[in-house]
Amino acid sequence: MPASALTKASAAPVVITTGEPAGIGPELTLMLAAQGLLPANAVAIGDPEMLRQRAASLGLDIPIVECSPGECPLGNHRLPVWPVALSAPVTPGVLNPANADYVLATLALAVDACQQGQASAMVTAPLHKGVIIEGGHVGFTGHTEWLRDACGVDEVVMMLATDAALHATSPSWQGSGDLRVALVTTHLPLRNVADAITYERVIRISHLLAADLQRQFNIAKPRIAVCGLNPHAGEDGHLGREELDIIIPALDALRAEGMDIHGPLPADTLFTPRHLAGVDAVLAMYHDQGLAVLKYAGFGQAANITLGLPLVRTSVDHGTALGLAGKGLADPSSLKVAITLARRLAAQRGGAR
Amino acid sequence: MPASALTKASAAPVVITTGEPAGIGPELTLMLAAQGLLPANAVAIGDPEMLRQRAASLGLDIPIVECSPGECPLGNHRLPVWPVALSAPVTPGVLNPANADYVLATLALAVDACQQGQASAMVTAPLHKGVIIEGGHVGFTGHTEWLRDACGVDEVVMMLATDAALHATSPSWQGSGDLRVALVTTHLPLRNVADAITYERVIRISHLLAADLQRQFNIAKPRIAVCGLNPHAGEDGHLGREELDIIIPALDALRAEGMDIHGPLPADTLFTPRHLAGVDAVLAMYHDQGLAVLKYAGFGQAANITLGLPLVRTSVDHGTALGLAGKGLADPSSLKVAITLARRLAAQRGGAR
Repeated sequence: MPASALTKASAAPVVITTGEPAGIGPELTLMLAAQGLLPANAVAIGDPEMLRQRAASLGLDIPIVECSPGECPLGNHRLPVWPVALSAPVTPGVLNPANADYVLATLALAVDACQQGQASAMVTAPLHKGVIIEGGHVGFTGHTEWLRDACGVDEVVMMLATDAALHATSPSWQGSGDLRVALVTTHLPLRNVADAITYERVIRISHLLAADLQRQFNIAKPRIAVCGLNPHAGEDGHLGREELDIIIPALDALRAEGMDIHGPLPADTLFTPRHLAGVDAVLAMYHDQGLAVLKYAGFGQAANITLGLPLVRTSVDHGTALGLAGKGLADPSSLKVAITLARRLAAQRGGAR
Repeated sequence: MPASALTKASAAPVVITTGEPAGIGPELTLMLAAQGLLPANAVAIGDPEMLRQRAASLGLDIPIVECSPGECPLGNHRLPVWPVALSAPVTPGVLNPANADYVLATLALAVDACQQGQASAMVTAPLHKGVIIEGGHVGFTGHTEWLRDACGVDEVVMMLATDAALHATSPSWQGSGDLRVALVTTHLPLRNVADAITYERVIRISHLLAADLQRQFNIAKPRIAVCGLNPHAGEDGHLGREELDIIIPALDALRAEGMDIHGPLPADTLFTPRHLAGVDAVLAMYHDQGLAVLKYAGFGQAANITLGLPLVRTSVDHGTALGLAGKGLADPSSLKVAITLARRLAAQRGGAR
């Protein structure tokens, strides 16, 4: 590819997979582009004609510039796109299983580009799990697991982060940067959470978290603070025994390895300025314990980061919002945060690798 | 009692029960008094000589002024005390079951004063449940239940609130005042929470919450936002069925009664500015779901308010901290918030009733 058409290698493009074409992913990308809120080296992946039609129907004046995968023509007020062709026409809000392969092809192109150094990071707009399954991919359980398998790794960790700039002026936050919350368990009914907390799982997730805080975030010796499972972290066994039987022994073992890991602390103690000071990431035991605080701290605008992959992947923290699709009413804030964090992670890892 | 010795009825004193004498309660009260941070009409309840000794040992220059229950001599830089005599001498940090009756007597005096209009509100410093039981009160399970029984009511609700002044400058908080979080379940092991969420319980707690937001907070038609139990509020049953089977039917029934109650919303959606706007209280399903956010929002400084009592009662949100007792190292912030909220609640209810 001609060097003139590319940004320099240290700023290889961030690619945005525009996700389910009937959802809000395409228009969120277009809205950011039209508002001048995309970085100069961002590239979208999707069907160019679909994006043109969506922009036109929303009255967004943003030229779509097709280019070959790996290329990223610089320039203001246009959206470079690496094309992937739809299988069937799209009506916003109406799912079509015929386009399941299209959605997965956008992901495959992004992974390939990241692995070949043609992209520095990938940011994913939402897809719709049900329609991918209906489209013939019966084992599909979500972006994160698909990426895990595509990259050939055994386990990944879901971490959400706010953009430090969002709460730099908040007196509640006295950390040195982003608030980051990783989860031991993710999308489980609450009644199944306690049984899913095992010694081995706490150990594995902590290892992955610490390793990626080093590798992706360039933090030499990450400090991790861990929530208990029960209220008051079990209060010496009076409010549950998982801390005594599982979490404390696991953290003791991790500390014996030299890890800078603290807790288990009551969640309503840990998320206070005194305990967050100096902490690089909080490890919460389950979804709402950690993410309610994180979304509050980030004004609802957070991004999802998948740890444990050999590439940088961030994601919006919301779904396809079919009811809003095609109306221009969706909020692109989370996509913007996801792009910002992806770029920073890519830079911290040394640009295009 | 001589009128000259009293504040006017509309500002009947706020009484502070100083709690377990071997804990940090006495010194927190003394610290606020010495720092000039008690309101002029605050009165402590406890053993005056114990308080004098504690003040002296901590080098706190604050005269202790004994007065009869119901009296509240005004004046700067002194601490009025309604005396209750200890049964045994106290060493800070060392529990003595002989003083269990003393602790309960301070509570009884406070309840009596509130019920007779000699106090406008009561604020409780921490007691130690174990030593009260050891002292012969085998059925004792805590302040809240003791007050419930003393006041002859069937059920109470635990609500925590921040002081609006604390986060008035926080960009995260866009509500009109305090952030308030009430709980459907309180101190249960996490694995027992799901089974404790019943239709009847959601209805009862919502009724009590709404009634006390009207009665104590003077909010004519309170707006309540309710969290789901499961992540993503169950995602239409994919992540748990309690929303579909229990919570949604309960909220439908409450709305049919005319209640302004919303949800169930995912906890990580509800606690964002857009959804908190106009909300008078959040009803969380369990402890860490609601209180982690609340403590974050309030910098760890929140107060506990017991709803459903015929009097105003607030409390610190921490324990006796025996290891810190007598050292002057404990943080009186939560006691200060509890006093501030108690005074505002008393004023909203019309002063001395």
